[in-house]
Amino acid sequence: MSSDHRLYTYLNEEFQPLESTYLHVSDLAIQRGYGIFDFFKTQHGHPLFLDDYLDRFYNSAQLMMLEVPLSAEELKVAITRLIQMNGLADSGVKMILTGGYSENGYNPGPSNLLMVEQPLTLPSPEQLAAGIKIITHEYVRELAEAKTINYTMGIRLIQKVKQQGADDVLYHQNGVVSEFPRSNFFLVKADNTLVTPAKDVLKGITRKNVLEIAARKYNVEEGTVTLQDLAQAKEAFMTSTTKRILPIVAVEGKLVGNGKPGEVSLDLLQELVQLEEAQAGVL
Amino acid sequence: MSSDHRLYTYLNEEFQPLESTYLHVSDLAIQRGYGIFDFFKTQHGHPLFLDDYLDRFYNSAQLMMLEVPLSAEELKVAITRLIQMNGLADSGVKMILTGGYSENGYNPGPSNLLMVEQPLTLPSPEQLAAGIKIITHEYVRELAEAKTINYTMGIRLIQKVKQQGADDVLYHQNGVVSEFPRSNFFLVKADNTLVTPAKDVLKGITRKNVLEIAARKYNVEEGTVTLQDLAQAKEAFMTSTTKRILPIVAVEGKLVGNGKPGEVSLDLLQELVQLEEAQAGVL
Repeated sequence: MSSDHRLYTYLNEEFQPLESTYLHVSDLAIQRGYGIFDFFKTQHGHPLFLDDYLDRFYNSAQLMMLEVPLSAEELKVAITRLIQMNGLADSGVKMILTGGYSENGYNPGPSNLLMVEQPLTLPSPEQLAAGIKIITHEYVRELAEAKTINYTMGIRLIQKVKQQGADDVLYHQNGVVSEFPRSNFFLVKADNTLVTPAKDVLKGITRKNVLEIAARKYNVEEGTVTLQDLAQAKEAFMTSTTKRILPIVAVEGKLVGNGKPGEVSLDLLQELVQLEEAQAGVL
Repeated sequence: MSSDHRLYTYLNEEFQPLESTYLHVSDLAIQRGYGIFDFFKTQHGHPLFLDDYLDRFYNSAQLMMLEVPLSAEELKVAITRLIQMNGLADSGVKMILTGGYSENGYNPGPSNLLMVEQPLTLPSPEQLAAGIKIITHEYVRELAEAKTINYTMGIRLIQKVKQQGADDVLYHQNGVVSEFPRSNFFLVKADNTLVTPAKDVLKGITRKNVLEIAARKYNVEEGTVTLQDLAQAKEAFMTSTTKRILPIVAVEGKLVGNGKPGEVSLDLLQELVQLEEAQAGVL
């Protein structure tokens, strides 16, 4: 992808250049941080697991009492056209639904529906080989089951993460682990059982795919994970649309397992990559 | 104020018509609900208690690791010019500071500073005579001491408030009362002592003024208020910049005191109106 590739967006039934896509300041995202979004990727021009992402998008909208102005079928037509216009091979598509233009700065108006497609960079082999270091922070996301645009805590913690030489921050409450600001969390026990937090998390589509893949070979549990479990884990990793499976090698400066990306994590990553390529119609 | 009055806004050192004031969709308020704001009013063209509002605005920015691009003195110059351009006698001025245009949709860029001035309607004599009915909801605002733009809970509750025939919703946690989505809470005990929650609240400027006024005549406390205290209260009221002092006459369908606006509440409102007029240079 050249950086001078002209990108188009979708906003309320119109396609327009990204650089000239604006929302009026009366929008409730600007006034009150009120909105939801979702994010899927395309591979070789094909959206991956689109139905899952759309289901979650409509579910988030409902939880926030917002109405998506298009049916899922209409939305798919718009997505297809956007992808065609942009002609990106591998991309991320963000759909944002806001509280709309508000007359009094508080009550929602008809929602604004925005879609932005941009080139996507997946983790490099070097990043995968190195794994990531994380810190932890006591916090539970509000309305965790909805993908709202509220990232107040995650963004406030960017500097702290950096200062501590870490790559991301894992939320927990009273030592019970939930999720990263933008990713899910998995742990591999000594007996190769996989566990991922069941509660207070956004149910990731990659999380769902990993649970399915892993269940073919390993014991898998959606349950409770504590910081103590993490201290005793053999492996740990994060999952997300953009990260796929990214091994965690240290937590608060202490090594996870032997401090290297684990074999279960890397095995599952291979399987996930195959699943994605099958979805994209390559295999 | 005629409705065809042309209003101007301030955005990053430029004054422009409200109808053409937009933010690019890469702004972190739209992408991640990340921003702070404040809101003061003008009376007879004079901003009231401006230094207090500006102190809080800069404090909120600091808590969210955002930098206000102007010094307080420079900001005052811009505010004065905006008020002159709009020529509104009584108005509300909202200052919004966002996480700025973000390159990756997550890391803040240089903040966008926006100011919108609009006509302000204070509660009518009829509203004051009737008082308001409220419901309660278990919730504590994240980072309550900062005036962030995150109103996810308040806005989600709009429909519930309406369905229950109420005017607003009071937050509490385990029965300990904090605040309304946009207002502070006061209670008057049987012995005319005033109490307002000390913790988990945004410290309102009107709250501060009411505490000062009330201390001249009554015992006042910043402390703990429970729903049980409220059930036994003689009077209760909310305070905010736009509401001033608004008596609460019912909570979850049960009358507060005798179910009418109380004399302490109305006495303090008179004093507050006088304080505001003195600030505006009228008295």
